[in-house]
Amino acid sequence: MKTHTLLMPLDMHLHLRDGVMLENIAPLSAYSFSGAIVMPNLVPPVTSLEDVQAYKKRIMAAVPNDYFEPYMTLFYKNYDKKFLESVVDEITAIKLYPAGITTNSDGGVSSFDIEQMRETLEAMSELEIPLCVHGETDGFVMDREAEFMSIYELLAQNFPKLKIIMEHITTKEAVAILDKYENLYATITVHHLLLTLDDVIGGMMMPHHFCKPIAKRPEDLDALLSVALEAHPKVMFGSDSAPHPQHKKEASGCAAGIFTAPIALQILCEIFEQYDKLENLQAFVSDNAQNIYGICPEFKEVTLVKEEFIVPEKYANVVPIYAQNALAWSIESVE
Amino acid sequence: MKTHTLLMPLDMHLHLRDGVMLENIAPLSAYSFSGAIVMPNLVPPVTSLEDVQAYKKRIMAAVPNDYFEPYMTLFYKNYDKKFLESVVDEITAIKLYPAGITTNSDGGVSSFDIEQMRETLEAMSELEIPLCVHGETDGFVMDREAEFMSIYELLAQNFPKLKIIMEHITTKEAVAILDKYENLYATITVHHLLLTLDDVIGGMMMPHHFCKPIAKRPEDLDALLSVALEAHPKVMFGSDSAPHPQHKKEASGCAAGIFTAPIALQILCEIFEQYDKLENLQAFVSDNAQNIYGICPEFKEVTLVKEEFIVPEKYANVVPIYAQNALAWSIESVE
Repeated sequence: MKTHTLLMPLDMHLHLRDGVMLENIAPLSAYSFSGAIVMPNLVPPVTSLEDVQAYKKRIMAAVPNDYFEPYMTLFYKNYDKKFLESVVDEITAIKLYPAGITTNSDGGVSSFDIEQMRETLEAMSELEIPLCVHGETDGFVMDREAEFMSIYELLAQNFPKLKIIMEHITTKEAVAILDKYENLYATITVHHLLLTLDDVIGGMMMPHHFCKPIAKRPEDLDALLSVALEAHPKVMFGSDSAPHPQHKKEASGCAAGIFTAPIALQILCEIFEQYDKLENLQAFVSDNAQNIYGICPEFKEVTLVKEEFIVPEKYANVVPIYAQNALAWSIESVE
Repeated sequence: MKTHTLLMPLDMHLHLRDGVMLENIAPLSAYSFSGAIVMPNLVPPVTSLEDVQAYKKRIMAAVPNDYFEPYMTLFYKNYDKKFLESVVDEITAIKLYPAGITTNSDGGVSSFDIEQMRETLEAMSELEIPLCVHGETDGFVMDREAEFMSIYELLAQNFPKLKIIMEHITTKEAVAILDKYENLYATITVHHLLLTLDDVIGGMMMPHHFCKPIAKRPEDLDALLSVALEAHPKVMFGSDSAPHPQHKKEASGCAAGIFTAPIALQILCEIFEQYDKLENLQAFVSDNAQNIYGICPEFKEVTLVKEEFIVPEKYANVVPIYAQNALAWSIESVE
């Protein structure tokens, strides 16, 4: 049986939530990943040293072993340098949300006034704290990411020493800008390597394919595949796995977010194998992230086997993508 | 209190379904409309004289009075002239669906081979039976209608005496083609005068705003408003009101269709008043259709009053658009 081994897989964009949801889902990521960048958009958001330490403690209490590193983040606000110096050892990045753009982002940035952000972003540059960005405007849904490119350019030009991660990119415009600035990087989800808008609303309406940013056009999917499959050195895997209880997804006013964490590696194997690029998966799911972030995860070896895996109907009360469908690859062992 | 009176409102594109659903919803349209073009996409579709007569009988049994005319349609297949001569007095139009493009359209046209369709379409031209068309390709969801324009052109050019109705148009491309061919006409729904894709998936995902064709971009909405508000003489109101039980809408794999029939006139009043075009509403909801189809509905006078109306949570088991929201206009009386 064909197998494929991945060393220290990393999920560079993960929502672990809190409370019972955290307890239900954190072990699933901890099983197959060495670590993950943990998003700070709790209610209220993670904005202090105490918040970070307490949240990390709750995460560690929820995972069954020591072989998973939650790389903690702060929710972006204008912080002063002294504060950032006090937290720099406890966080891996700071996550910026435009206000109101996605789940629990109300406290985000409402205008991109570079001068108002300068102190914080220069301090982050000096302290080598990467800035992770949810890059969408409040424009028409299919244009939001492309419209945000000018803000990425502004940030990249004004803060050339700041590592800027374009999170969960979905468009050819984001792919095109990647090599234009040395300090721009990107994460790509597994669902954005699979879906276009057709899979969300082209046939029936599929709440479990609904996320922000929304999946875009076929040519956008092609652009994302082109850099992911080649494991472009500035591109990392970040699942943006975002659990919501089933009753909040299958409802009028369905929440945005796709749950992929427990099956992301299996699906990535299938995609990379399909395009005969399995040899690049290691860089996409770990090596690039280690280089970009300068992190050294503890050893973990995940062996996948080409054996059918039926995706469960639910994990706790969360319906995953492809629920009850067959995947081509399974996880055989984790060491 | 401000009032506005409409004479013989007509809904030139309506789904009345069958069985219990028909019994529940037909009276709602019969109350405020003089008549409606009734879609034939039942399971199985309406394809014979007997089907038409029996369906009309079931509709008439479901409505409480004689003041509503169901203008019957056949589901397009290649029919011979003799057959069409036998049904011409019983139908008002024939509705063409590309195969599989929407609810119950599996038996539709799978390739637009003009020569194969010539006998039927020439007979329809001679017998003056209009052709109503669901104009979408099987392409990317945002492009489907625009891609269909070449098929409309082909039909319009090849059958210059055939009245071709572009049903429920949603794009600036369809608006642009309207005046290019004398024999092209269009219906526009009320929801496509309200919604863009932002209202479907731009915030939360809204199953009760999900329909086919999907609501498009802001510039498409503007184009539709421009011809509707002017009551362009080739444009008619057709609700495409399409009821589904609540459990089929608020679910994974939500069915396409928006239920508007009982509140369409109230919402149209609000839109036309907002743009200071109330004087054109009569042409949009009745006069244009009478001219295009050559029909003379029985007298009905619907008086609307500018008084708040709270949309019910449900009509039977069907959730309407804007459920539990306030509309600016109510129906005061129907005579």
